[in-house]
Amino acid sequence: MELLKSSIRGEKLDAVFISSVSNISYLTDFTNFSKDEREAYLLIGEDFAYIITDGRYIEAVRKQVKNFTIFERGGGKNTEDLFKKLNSKIKSLGIEEDNLTVAEYKIVKKHFKKLKHFNVEVLRSLKNDNEIEKIKKACFIGDKAFKYILTRIKTGVTEKKIAFEIEKFVKSQGADLSFPSIVAFGKNSSIPHHQTGEKGLATNDKLVLLDFGVKWENYCSDMTRTIFFGQPTKSQKEIYQVVYEAQQKAVDFLNSKIKLGEKVTGAQVDKTAREYIKSKGFPDIPHSLGHGIGLEVHEQPYLSPKSKEVLKEGMVFSIEPGIYLPDFGSPRFGGEAGGVRIEDLFVVEKMGLKQITTSSKEIIKI
Amino acid sequence: MELLKSSIRGEKLDAVFISSVSNISYLTDFTNFSKDEREAYLLIGEDFAYIITDGRYIEAVRKQVKNFTIFERGGGKNTEDLFKKLNSKIKSLGIEEDNLTVAEYKIVKKHFKKLKHFNVEVLRSLKNDNEIEKIKKACFIGDKAFKYILTRIKTGVTEKKIAFEIEKFVKSQGADLSFPSIVAFGKNSSIPHHQTGEKGLATNDKLVLLDFGVKWENYCSDMTRTIFFGQPTKSQKEIYQVVYEAQQKAVDFLNSKIKLGEKVTGAQVDKTAREYIKSKGFPDIPHSLGHGIGLEVHEQPYLSPKSKEVLKEGMVFSIEPGIYLPDFGSPRFGGEAGGVRIEDLFVVEKMGLKQITTSSKEIIKI
Repeated sequence: MELLKSSIRGEKLDAVFISSVSNISYLTDFTNFSKDEREAYLLIGEDFAYIITDGRYIEAVRKQVKNFTIFERGGGKNTEDLFKKLNSKIKSLGIEEDNLTVAEYKIVKKHFKKLKHFNVEVLRSLKNDNEIEKIKKACFIGDKAFKYILTRIKTGVTEKKIAFEIEKFVKSQGADLSFPSIVAFGKNSSIPHHQTGEKGLATNDKLVLLDFGVKWENYCSDMTRTIFFGQPTKSQKEIYQVVYEAQQKAVDFLNSKIKLGEKVTGAQVDKTAREYIKSKGFPDIPHSLGHGIGLEVHEQPYLSPKSKEVLKEGMVFSIEPGIYLPDFGSPRFGGEAGGVRIEDLFVVEKMGLKQITTSSKEIIKI
Repeated sequence: MELLKSSIRGEKLDAVFISSVSNISYLTDFTNFSKDEREAYLLIGEDFAYIITDGRYIEAVRKQVKNFTIFERGGGKNTEDLFKKLNSKIKSLGIEEDNLTVAEYKIVKKHFKKLKHFNVEVLRSLKNDNEIEKIKKACFIGDKAFKYILTRIKTGVTEKKIAFEIEKFVKSQGADLSFPSIVAFGKNSSIPHHQTGEKGLATNDKLVLLDFGVKWENYCSDMTRTIFFGQPTKSQKEIYQVVYEAQQKAVDFLNSKIKLGEKVTGAQVDKTAREYIKSKGFPDIPHSLGHGIGLEVHEQPYLSPKSKEVLKEGMVFSIEPGIYLPDFGSPRFGGEAGGVRIEDLFVVEKMGLKQITTSSKEIIKI
């Protein structure tokens, strides 16, 4: 909260209006609001902090949220009544332009003249030890789930069944999934975000791509492994090796910069892996190299071609290069369609990068 | 799509820009975009229909989405390039003001002068037979899950465990949950949207509130039952009876209106149940009486005090009165905190209202 208030002062704002559910969770530690609807807002200034919610949540918020004054909307009272009460105090208000809707904006604008974008996410990108411990625990459970799921991959099993087995395992550990697992067999692995389906595993599918994450006390992990069902072909092994090396190149580059105490941006790291894959004659990675992770699976910092974010101590993010050869196949892949992605999470520590997902990246054959 | 185009003409717009994931799913039948991020948009006019997405989805969209031209963003091309290409054709553009963010709005505004709110949800509120069949199937699986879960409610079992058992059952039927199940034991039932937790069921908890839904081919169900662990007290039985009657009053009122062919709004139905509960000396319902359901758990029409929506044939919605007596208890409830909610789904048919969740509403003692 002190960090937030100093950031509000730094932006020369009198208050901020927070609408993003993840940021509300971050600031209040209350995690039961749904992302599908607007069930709460925060209005925070130097000497006030309101949480605005309705009758469904009042009891729970009263019990669990400290340091906030509750404003109950509904039953004739709406958020505008609070705006009216405070608008003499608030000349300039920060809003989350990347979250607030146009309809909400039109209402806010009626009450406050000077509105300006305010970024809470950037505060979240620097994790404290407590947050990092939670992410590590999520990674630890993910690694266990990976070991377990290898024992369930058999001819005929469907993608959905494997995804469900991962989920059951994760829940048996008292955790949740951080997103619906991606399980892609054979040529489905050529679709970076394949929708896990009813396809059964066939002997000639060869590739099994598993991309899943765990949520522990609201903090997320994320990991991808691509394994082989049967003996990989020579070109499949080559592709696997290139993806593996691309990740390693990015890690080495980032490590060397951290050790030298030099600034490095998300874009620079992204470029290292991307250029390496292209230099080997494979198609460009059709997604960012990586993303920050925490309360959300995808959050700042981004390791993308355009990212100017400087990677700093306390940041946690994925590095996940991939090669995808779609339907039409590729001579280099023996004409077969397929894809390989390897994804791990890393935390920036004082002396270098630390990998916190620890599952093997050797070629695994089942 | 024809319905959409006629609605675009009706609003005197040249095109609409669709950003809501549910509306994108509705119009394209492609259901793999995440709600947490902007992974796609639609831009639709009289003689064009674009789907805008990035490299992660291009392969899948190419295979599954018909009748749309794909515009791939990323790799130097962004959505604004498409805007530039089309802005001579588009004088007035419909946007989803309740979904589009301020940041997106600022970009759209650069290219199109006349922007106006456009509502796709209202099209979705009238379901066709195919959609209703899917919701019925979701309800059917939900009813089976309810029967099953009654066998798992035992002293010591935790709320989370029961929620997980519901989930496993639903998934074993090839379906998904439509939202994280709410399981509330004892006084936790006094919180309308309780966050299912680690509380174990104790003999004196008495109340077990179960609110869960099933998703079948992307269409959702939703149901709540409150059952008794042991013998209910006299006042608990009375409260249950009042909630049950409140639902019945709303159903009877709506049915009589439909049969007379008279217009009836969501607000009128809401009022019937709400006033009945208050007339019995209980606190007002701290939420709406009901909500439409389909691709989203909560969508139009709403049965709330302010809803002017006229309820029509083909609409599917919940009717879910509740009485909640929080921590401090209430003399009428023997000083005990607790809550009762009963929720069913209904479809408006030509000759009247049809209930499509069919689990018993008799008092159930375990």
